[in-house]
Amino acid sequence: MPSGRRIMQRCEALALHSEQGGGLTRVFLSEQNRAANELVLGWMQEAGMQARLDAAGNVVGRYEGERPGLPCLMMGSHLDTVRDAGKYDGMLGVVTALECVAALHEGKRRLGFAIEVVGFGDEEGVRFGTTFLGSRAIAGTLPPAVLEAADGEGTSLGEALRRFGLDPARCAEAARRPEEILAYAELHIEQGPVLEAEGLPVGVVSAIAGFTRLRVTLKGRAGHAGTVPMALRRDALAGAAEAVLAVERIARGEPELVGTVGRLEPLPGAINVIPGEARFTVDLRAPRDALRQRARAQIEAALQAIARGRGLELGIEALQEQAVTPCAPWIIAQMERAIAAEGMPVRQLASGAGHDGMAIAAVADIGMLFVRCKGGISHNPAESITEADAAAGARVLLNFMMNFSK
Amino acid sequence: MPSGRRIMQRCEALALHSEQGGGLTRVFLSEQNRAANELVLGWMQEAGMQARLDAAGNVVGRYEGERPGLPCLMMGSHLDTVRDAGKYDGMLGVVTALECVAALHEGKRRLGFAIEVVGFGDEEGVRFGTTFLGSRAIAGTLPPAVLEAADGEGTSLGEALRRFGLDPARCAEAARRPEEILAYAELHIEQGPVLEAEGLPVGVVSAIAGFTRLRVTLKGRAGHAGTVPMALRRDALAGAAEAVLAVERIARGEPELVGTVGRLEPLPGAINVIPGEARFTVDLRAPRDALRQRARAQIEAALQAIARGRGLELGIEALQEQAVTPCAPWIIAQMERAIAAEGMPVRQLASGAGHDGMAIAAVADIGMLFVRCKGGISHNPAESITEADAAAGARVLLNFMMNFSK
Repeated sequence: MPSGRRIMQRCEALALHSEQGGGLTRVFLSEQNRAANELVLGWMQEAGMQARLDAAGNVVGRYEGERPGLPCLMMGSHLDTVRDAGKYDGMLGVVTALECVAALHEGKRRLGFAIEVVGFGDEEGVRFGTTFLGSRAIAGTLPPAVLEAADGEGTSLGEALRRFGLDPARCAEAARRPEEILAYAELHIEQGPVLEAEGLPVGVVSAIAGFTRLRVTLKGRAGHAGTVPMALRRDALAGAAEAVLAVERIARGEPELVGTVGRLEPLPGAINVIPGEARFTVDLRAPRDALRQRARAQIEAALQAIARGRGLELGIEALQEQAVTPCAPWIIAQMERAIAAEGMPVRQLASGAGHDGMAIAAVADIGMLFVRCKGGISHNPAESITEADAAAGARVLLNFMMNFSK
Repeated sequence: MPSGRRIMQRCEALALHSEQGGGLTRVFLSEQNRAANELVLGWMQEAGMQARLDAAGNVVGRYEGERPGLPCLMMGSHLDTVRDAGKYDGMLGVVTALECVAALHEGKRRLGFAIEVVGFGDEEGVRFGTTFLGSRAIAGTLPPAVLEAADGEGTSLGEALRRFGLDPARCAEAARRPEEILAYAELHIEQGPVLEAEGLPVGVVSAIAGFTRLRVTLKGRAGHAGTVPMALRRDALAGAAEAVLAVERIARGEPELVGTVGRLEPLPGAINVIPGEARFTVDLRAPRDALRQRARAQIEAALQAIARGRGLELGIEALQEQAVTPCAPWIIAQMERAIAAEGMPVRQLASGAGHDGMAIAAVADIGMLFVRCKGGISHNPAESITEADAAAGARVLLNFMMNFSK
């Protein structure tokens, strides 16, 4: 049986490897990354796996099936963190997958396929400003130019790989062929409040949401807060306020849609000056591309109406556009059977956050399990899960693995 | 006849005395302030006035009446500027008053009262962070502790006075007794768009608006922009957006009221994070205290309703509260007669901006004339008036002065 306690202990142990004391920050190819890798490589060996660092800095453990060289069920998650992170985002998926392999190894069981557990070196993109470096390397979709990407101190990814003991010229060798991977299954904390609100320890992910990110500028006319009558104003912030509420209203119109204005800046930003300009961002996500695209069109129409109504000049710049990554129905079905077999209600939910599976989907069908987390809080030291939920997640993942078939 | 051309030329000449080239910034007790003072002192002497720097750094010129020592009609405005200022805010009032005295002097006329023209050393408060230093000194309302106020380099007002050649211990000697001043009359650019919108060169001020300044904080719950469903959010920025629109709606409800949200900051302010907190300011002004106080109560009630409706925590901090300064009806009446006598339509309007008269009102009845400015733009290098309007303002001020009687 997988041990919830050991999962929690190992998350704690990994969390000790941080840039700063009293918190957790661990970026790709750092000394802390190396130390975390060594812990994981050791745990892999304990679980009877062949363990190695791949050419792109991912930790990869392999547990052979009934005979050597079979294609694998790949499991895992990432070992890097955001700044001032929690202990479970990423690490829980690696540690839980290892716990499942350990259970297999204890029972001296071999399956009709190999198991690989991957600790991706970079998912968050904190150091080089570009995400999924580890999983894109394994998917073979990492453009060579990314080796030139530099961190805040001007060190390139290529140079950082070299200092880590890797040869950047061989980075592409981390890529795996589709026929080597039967499926990719990742367990991750939900990072949202849905499972907690419904009293469920585990859920199965239907799709990883696509997103649209916009930068919007409204220009009106600045003026003295005391001398310009209301009727003669062209207040850019008042227009932006209407826009914030329009984004909220449109996103509320569909249960699967979320829309957020996270940044907003009135200019010049003085207590006694009517804002002549307001800049803000829109982040729009949905598990269906058509839904997100329709909402984007609605938001753009609303912005145009607001600008027209207030005599403001409108600029909309598309910053990022990412299509939905669906989870494979056959993997979802097997994950749902595993949840039911462990006596839990089955709940599908979309992932609003991005995950390594978005990159791995280029070479393999993917599936994901979510584990309940406290208050939906993530990317924060207050990120929290219970040992009981860690154990429940591990039982489901183990059941899925034991019964997996393509 | 006062010369519109000379008024414009003198505003240009004063504008050359600036901290930076290619713009205008002139703060209290600076070398540029000294140079501007010397220009004005010279013009005063040309106009037959006794001219001096008073104990608080104000330039004061006196043109005696039919016999020496009569109480005075005080006119003027300020000689300091905001950063990156226009050429007319303040200076126009000093230069125009001098132009009126020059006309008197040319005609060798003496009136039944003295005329004093004051160029206040500080109105804007840029250097020491506290406004009306010059006019409060003359009103005798400057608290002695203000001498300790320091500029950005740590120099106190007292020390700056000393370096300027003044004795801070004698600063209080700038104060004037009520019986010395029959009235205070200030001509100033409107700094708003009302006269321009109505095609009028000159207006008479009914009152200087009082103001209320609030700092509002709304606290909700930060969260991942992708993972928290709309129904489970407590988005502080969405609450602030409602508040911005509530301030606008309430201010639009009364023609004399203006309300502005000039600063607004969502926290943490990341594109992919639901704002857990939003801070913003409210600046509320009206020419009647009761109107402003009622609007403030309406805004606070609206904020409470917004916070309640969204499950947000509300904090309201009163930053500043300034009562209305009414212009004296008898001075308004004489100014209106002067406008009509010069063949212009009479228009009363409130001043939304603060002026030296707010301080002088402690020792004398006050009145103000506004001159039309382009686009209502002020506190900006684009501040602009026409020579014709400068001349019209001077004719009205001269007519008022010639016919003034208490």
